[in-house]
Amino acid sequence: MEKINIDNKLKLFQDHWNPRIIGELNGQQVKLAKLKGEFVWHSHEKEDELFYVIKGILKMEFRDRVEILQPGEMIIVARGVEHKPVAEEEVHVMLFEPASTINTGEIENEKTRKKLEII
Amino acid sequence: MEKINIDNKLKLFQDHWNPRIIGELNGQQVKLAKLKGEFVWHSHEKEDELFYVIKGILKMEFRDRVEILQPGEMIIVARGVEHKPVAEEEVHVMLFEPASTINTGEIENEKTRKKLEII
Repeated sequence: MEKINIDNKLKLFQDHWNPRIIGELNGQQVKLAKLKGEFVWHSHEKEDELFYVIKGILKMEFRDRVEILQPGEMIIVARGVEHKPVAEEEVHVMLFEPASTINTGEIENEKTRKKLEII
Repeated sequence: MEKINIDNKLKLFQDHWNPRIIGELNGQQVKLAKLKGEFVWHSHEKEDELFYVIKGILKMEFRDRVEILQPGEMIIVARGVEHKPVAEEEVHVMLFEPASTINTGEIENEKTRKKLEII
């Protein structure tokens, strides 16, 4: 139960689309991820997902619209809603979501990460 | 399901020790609070609580030690653990905790807030 410094944690990994776990509480996990490029369209059947932008500009595409997020902005993607994160330049995000959440949701492909590292 | 800008939300209130709700997901709430001065010693029987510092320096006192948090740092206070937040100068924090969480935990006093405003 010690403090967690986000910048220091972000220095511990460089790869994209591979979230790390930095904390857990009430069955939820706090994760950090570096994003670059386009992710896959997906949804999470049972999990709402929060994206908080730390660095860069995150484009969150929905089927009917797009949200552009700057650092200091967040979005909560409700369960069942298809979304596709896009990062034209590198983006750093903090995620809050249930421990059960798989990054690619109902899709399984080369970006799927089932065992996340705790840092 | 629109983006949330933290700085804009923080402009909507000025009072201390009175968290506002800015989002909800998976039975958890995301809150913002402005802190100044000393809070009360308390614990939460069933809720782990995350404090993420946006502005200022937060001193989190425990019975056996103190953690000093700068902006960009967070701490997860486990359920049952007595703690007392102290802000010598004004501090802005984001909280992530179950919707059932009462700010003063098992204590009820003039700082207790049971009905939080959604902003």
